[in-house]
Amino acid sequence: MESILKCIENIDKDMVVAAKKRLDSLSKPLGSLGRLEDMVMQICGITRQLMPSIDKKAIVVMCSDNGVVEEGVTQVGKEVTAAVVMNFTRGITGINVLARHCGADVVIVDIGVDADVSHPHIFNRKIRNGTWNISKGPAMTRQEAEKAIVSGIELVGELKKQGYGIIGTGEMGIGNTTTSSAVACAITGFCVDCMVGRGAGLSDEGLKRKRDVVRKALEINKPDRTDGIDVVSKVGGFDIAGLAGCFIGGAVHKMPIVIDGFISMAAALVAATIEPKTKQYMIPSHFSAEPGTMKLFEYLQLKPYLHLDMRLGEGTGCALAFHIIDAAFAAYKYMGTFSDANIRQYEPQR
Amino acid sequence: MESILKCIENIDKDMVVAAKKRLDSLSKPLGSLGRLEDMVMQICGITRQLMPSIDKKAIVVMCSDNGVVEEGVTQVGKEVTAAVVMNFTRGITGINVLARHCGADVVIVDIGVDADVSHPHIFNRKIRNGTWNISKGPAMTRQEAEKAIVSGIELVGELKKQGYGIIGTGEMGIGNTTTSSAVACAITGFCVDCMVGRGAGLSDEGLKRKRDVVRKALEINKPDRTDGIDVVSKVGGFDIAGLAGCFIGGAVHKMPIVIDGFISMAAALVAATIEPKTKQYMIPSHFSAEPGTMKLFEYLQLKPYLHLDMRLGEGTGCALAFHIIDAAFAAYKYMGTFSDANIRQYEPQR
Repeated sequence: MESILKCIENIDKDMVVAAKKRLDSLSKPLGSLGRLEDMVMQICGITRQLMPSIDKKAIVVMCSDNGVVEEGVTQVGKEVTAAVVMNFTRGITGINVLARHCGADVVIVDIGVDADVSHPHIFNRKIRNGTWNISKGPAMTRQEAEKAIVSGIELVGELKKQGYGIIGTGEMGIGNTTTSSAVACAITGFCVDCMVGRGAGLSDEGLKRKRDVVRKALEINKPDRTDGIDVVSKVGGFDIAGLAGCFIGGAVHKMPIVIDGFISMAAALVAATIEPKTKQYMIPSHFSAEPGTMKLFEYLQLKPYLHLDMRLGEGTGCALAFHIIDAAFAAYKYMGTFSDANIRQYEPQR
Repeated sequence: MESILKCIENIDKDMVVAAKKRLDSLSKPLGSLGRLEDMVMQICGITRQLMPSIDKKAIVVMCSDNGVVEEGVTQVGKEVTAAVVMNFTRGITGINVLARHCGADVVIVDIGVDADVSHPHIFNRKIRNGTWNISKGPAMTRQEAEKAIVSGIELVGELKKQGYGIIGTGEMGIGNTTTSSAVACAITGFCVDCMVGRGAGLSDEGLKRKRDVVRKALEINKPDRTDGIDVVSKVGGFDIAGLAGCFIGGAVHKMPIVIDGFISMAAALVAATIEPKTKQYMIPSHFSAEPGTMKLFEYLQLKPYLHLDMRLGEGTGCALAFHIIDAAFAAYKYMGTFSDANIRQYEPQR
């Protein structure tokens, strides 16, 4: 992996400047498209193209199980992971509908589901049938974590070869807000109580249990916060490791990668810890309902575009963000310039 | 107008409940689509339909000039209003591009442009060639304000007859952040300094002048904050009055009306002052960059969905919100239910 990481570069500042020049030539008050302009400049800088082609979109959904579910930290049992994964292939889940609506393909990856979910439409990248229980020891070995990360990096490379221009990150795995909280606490040092939420809908008692479990996982495993691979292997999950690989893959392959909700943010933290330059390739999407989200955005120095209080996961926030990103590029590509518009360019005011 | 206002009813609570029942039957954790669910319930309640048809969309762009521009409160001259209005007919402006991208039609209305902008694609509802200077007296007579409001109400009725299911509100008029600030201060009682911003991009000196002008307009005209028509006629503009009519028209004709940015919010305030029930028919969109926006959202008890720091106006925020609203209805209509999904419904947790 060392050699892969070495080839990661900063985004192209000259292309950012070139995109800004075009934006400023459009017939509108300077900067009046606000953060749509930031989005366009960032993606031009990432792709090294003044007119990037992001029409072909994918949402990668990493699916896996978590041994920690045996601690009673979730509202439903782990069998729901496999059931939902099979429903992804039937096109009836939230992400299927929202991806179809925005013209994105859903790439379903079995990176560690604790059941046989073989299917022609599921990418088999299974590391193992679910992780071990993080409240009793590490989730996986360091080698397994590296394998999951490399899977994510390679997948982004494959998708780029297939012509995809932008990728969203989703997941499915009962118990993964628990592992994500543990990863987030380990890396940021934020307190357990402010990082652990109700996930899909825990009771007060369930929430207390979940917090205790995260505290225990951190105490027992003592993850090294400066070592992203150590953190994700000890208190994370295969889904988080795979998605961290996608974020790294974005930086390696010069592709914009959209962050979804809380779990995806935990993966982004792992990627940013392994190689800080990956942050430049991450596009925020929505502000999820999990309580730690705002602190994590601040930590990553990113700001979400959508405030919808969603907490469905699966990459659904990315599907919504794709609409906004497409709209930003529509404005960028098709608005008239000042010379088209017969209006003198707005000048800095007297 | 009294008789029109009398026919405004609350949205249909039973239909809101029926929509919630369907949302809760979808195979996802209860409430996990967050505010997308609120959006769906509200629109079902507004339209009195469990499966409302909102595919046909329009963005009404009210265009007019403001006499107060002669006070030097803007970055460009009033001739830019007519120039941009003509560009609307050429399909090259921000709202043209973003409306096309979301499948909405742009309905351009000349409600008071200070130039002849006759064109087959422009609705002529001109009250007069621009308002009077609000820093010297009222913008218009009460009769003119009523006429502009009725124009907006009737336009929504016409659009409903043509099969439109949802309407966004946009505007074009150099100087209209000045009039909107004055309207917002008059109705809410918020201070001038916290409500007046840089508009399209004023300098420090320009900002000071704009604040002084708003203060003067309020002092000279003494608008009655409990009387929306009095406020808009004294310190508003024809665009604001016309858009206030659109919001009232939404409530009259049971159509969802999307709020755009600062000027559109001022119009929403006028409508809500005239008839508070109109608030139930308003859909917020984005959080604009004008400084008073958050306070106005709080005052209207609404929360924006998009945080993009846009300040282009023209209804551009509505075009972006339409994507999110469409996505919400896609999930609502096409996601599988728990019985489709072979998963037991999530139960309130032990």
